[in-house]
Amino acid sequence: MRPIVALLTDFGSQDHYAGAVRGAVLAACREATVVDLTHDVAPHDVIEAAFALAAARGAFPEGTTFLAVVDPGVGSDRRALALEVAGQRFVGPDNGIFTFVLDEHAPARIHEITNAGLFRARVSATFHARDIFGPVAGRLAAGMALEEVGPPLADPMRLALDGPRPVGPDQWEATVLHVDRFGNLITTFGHDDVDAMLSTVQGDPTELVVVVEGAVLPLVRTYSDVGEGEACAVLGSSGRLEVSVNLGSAARQLGAARGAPVRVRKASRAGG
Amino acid sequence: MRPIVALLTDFGSQDHYAGAVRGAVLAACREATVVDLTHDVAPHDVIEAAFALAAARGAFPEGTTFLAVVDPGVGSDRRALALEVAGQRFVGPDNGIFTFVLDEHAPARIHEITNAGLFRARVSATFHARDIFGPVAGRLAAGMALEEVGPPLADPMRLALDGPRPVGPDQWEATVLHVDRFGNLITTFGHDDVDAMLSTVQGDPTELVVVVEGAVLPLVRTYSDVGEGEACAVLGSSGRLEVSVNLGSAARQLGAARGAPVRVRKASRAGG
Amino acid sequence: MRPIVALLTDFGSQDHYAGAVRGAVLAACREATVVDLTHDVAPHDVIEAAFALAAARGAFPEGTTFLAVVDPGVGSDRRALALEVAGQRFVGPDNGIFTFVLDEHAPARIHEITNAGLFRARVSATFHARDIFGPVAGRLAAGMALEEVGPPLADPMRLALDGPRPVGPDQWEATVLHVDRFGNLITTFGHDDVDAMLSTVQGDPTELVVVVEGAVLPLVRTYSDVGEGEACAVLGSSGRLEVSVNLGSAARQLGAARGAPVRVRKASRAGG
Repeated sequence: MRPIVALLTDFGSQDHYAGAVRGAVLAACREATVVDLTHDVAPHDVIEAAFALAAARGAFPEGTTFLAVVDPGVGSDRRALALEVAGQRFVGPDNGIFTFVLDEHAPARIHEITNAGLFRARVSATFHARDIFGPVAGRLAAGMALEEVGPPLADPMRLALDGPRPVGPDQWEATVLHVDRFGNLITTFGHDDVDAMLSTVQGDPTELVVVVEGAVLPLVRTYSDVGEGEACAVLGSSGRLEVSVNLGSAARQLGAARGAPVRVRKASRAGG
Repeated sequence: MRPIVALLTDFGSQDHYAGAVRGAVLAACREATVVDLTHDVAPHDVIEAAFALAAARGAFPEGTTFLAVVDPGVGSDRRALALEVAGQRFVGPDNGIFTFVLDEHAPARIHEITNAGLFRARVSATFHARDIFGPVAGRLAAGMALEEVGPPLADPMRLALDGPRPVGPDQWEATVLHVDRFGNLITTFGHDDVDAMLSTVQGDPTELVVVVEGAVLPLVRTYSDVGEGEACAVLGSSGRLEVSVNLGSAARQLGAARGAPVRVRKASRAGG
Repeated sequence: MRPIVALLTDFGSQDHYAGAVRGAVLAACREATVVDLTHDVAPHDVIEAAFALAAARGAFPEGTTFLAVVDPGVGSDRRALALEVAGQRFVGPDNGIFTFVLDEHAPARIHEITNAGLFRARVSATFHARDIFGPVAGRLAAGMALEEVGPPLADPMRLALDGPRPVGPDQWEATVLHVDRFGNLITTFGHDDVDAMLSTVQGDPTELVVVVEGAVLPLVRTYSDVGEGEACAVLGSSGRLEVSVNLGSAARQLGAARGAPVRVRKASRAGG
């Protein structure tokens, strides 16, 4: 079965960095299929990387190895991790980048990467994706046992994020986690949160509304359930509540950016 | 023989969407070589996607499967297609994205994708590239018969585009179809149109000129046939008439954008 | 052993050009793993391409074939090259793009590509990456002997670049070669230059400072050796002296761009 390695970094595409990581993986596992998850996470944005990793991993087959490196602390004493969860493996810095993957799946086997015998002969202080994570990901993809990387680790770093919270009777608030290329606002309300909120109205989505930057929006099945240029909320493809404009940009139309508060409440209540 | 799947979308690179589609294809066909045609078609721009697909497909080997998803109507009742033409296969929405491929090659075998047994277990309303087209492309690449996707379909949607037209004696007009990264203006004049126009001047390109935004340009073999910074027209690599500036940007220098009229006429005529 | 072909161009990602090159390589070598080094070199910027190629190639395994096409002279009479150096192979235009690869490794076997039997049936005047270099790279990756491409060539073009030079007692000057996505300033001071400068101070980096745009910076092991927002110089991952700001952009903070002078001198000297 062909090994697959998927890459997630903030290296962008205009430099040679992502290319060098592809080479490092292939140098460790020549048979690997190496594909990109994305390299255009905003520089140093661990939260965005954590979201993208959790949102995409489920589409990849069992046995995929993910290299996830958004690493503002490279060269400092932050630890390096390799972990196995939900039939897939992950390598990257211990800075919270695996928060959502660990939240959504259990149990996880987590090891610290300390086995320098796996690294590039000469490890640069600033490019561990090429010199440590790439070689380790390649070896894991080629079948190396997880415990070969180093000792078990029990306390991986987690991002301290405000999840959705009740803010009144039948009223919940979360925030915009990510604005995508199409201007969709992806929120911190997860699938389970939406289910819980729906249960308060006997599962009828027309009984709920979503409030963003003062706009009161219907909760619908898909964008095209509202007219062109109209805003709505949907349970999006990444398992989160999203705010969208049919054939338009919700970010532009509503003036909302990452971090903006998003509220869900009963449609019958007055006010926003 | 290794299966090849080439991807064309408007998902861009800053989100996880293109990554998830790569994963979905690999989940359906682990042995596939998955490569990008491009993911940076302008959002929702079906015309640009149709052009890029037709311009690139000929470089890929026989047996390649193309996933082409620029899909503003996702979640509505637009149909989903799989087709076979010129020894290659294509999957995507029925919104005109295959117009040029179908125009340039015949016969085509076209089927509607209706076999839900091929889809992801849970199909999102907004991400059919991952949940429907990716799995179907993977299965087709792995050797599945085309008719497995669903029933034959006879009336695929076509883009209603104005082709080149005569606008006077020995004078033809078309438009700019695409402006590329280098500022080249790729027009709706195809290879056959250029041949037909050349036949009116005994095949001598120096007898024709190309007029864009008031500038009268020579028709030459390649950019470097004119001086640095000079504009010209060439029969471009994608089989269309292009307007270029040697070592410069025709778009900037001539102030022309997509949709701008482009005229070809005899060099000897006065006026533009 | 699987053939690997790595691609470096200035084609960007918004057009179909990089996709067509991937197809052309696969058409010549269906079993190849085709990966990107980068396609976002600034248009026509041969120096940047030469740097990226030399900086990344060492991460790839032996036997990798590189297609490197930044080719402002396409269609003119510039020659086409295939070369073998350090156990890897390279194809591209003879315009200096291989300068650093040739400088850093010897001996090289260099041949001119003249064997038209290897090309696409119909060679466009403007897209040799698809019509000449892609097919040749694919054949080489599949195992074709280098000399099949054409006759040996002894005088490949080299970029005429100013290297680092002494500008006073214990004082050297070079320039910024590349500004990366993170705002790091990568200079023309190479690894050997830094070693030579260090030897004048008994190998103690604290005895040297780096001066850029009037700012006097310490030479440290890695960014995180200075405080957040502070500038420093490091021996970077691509084997060159780099100027960085910890968790910030040196380009923005220092107001430096490509071509800016960078000076190294003893810490004890007065002035800049």
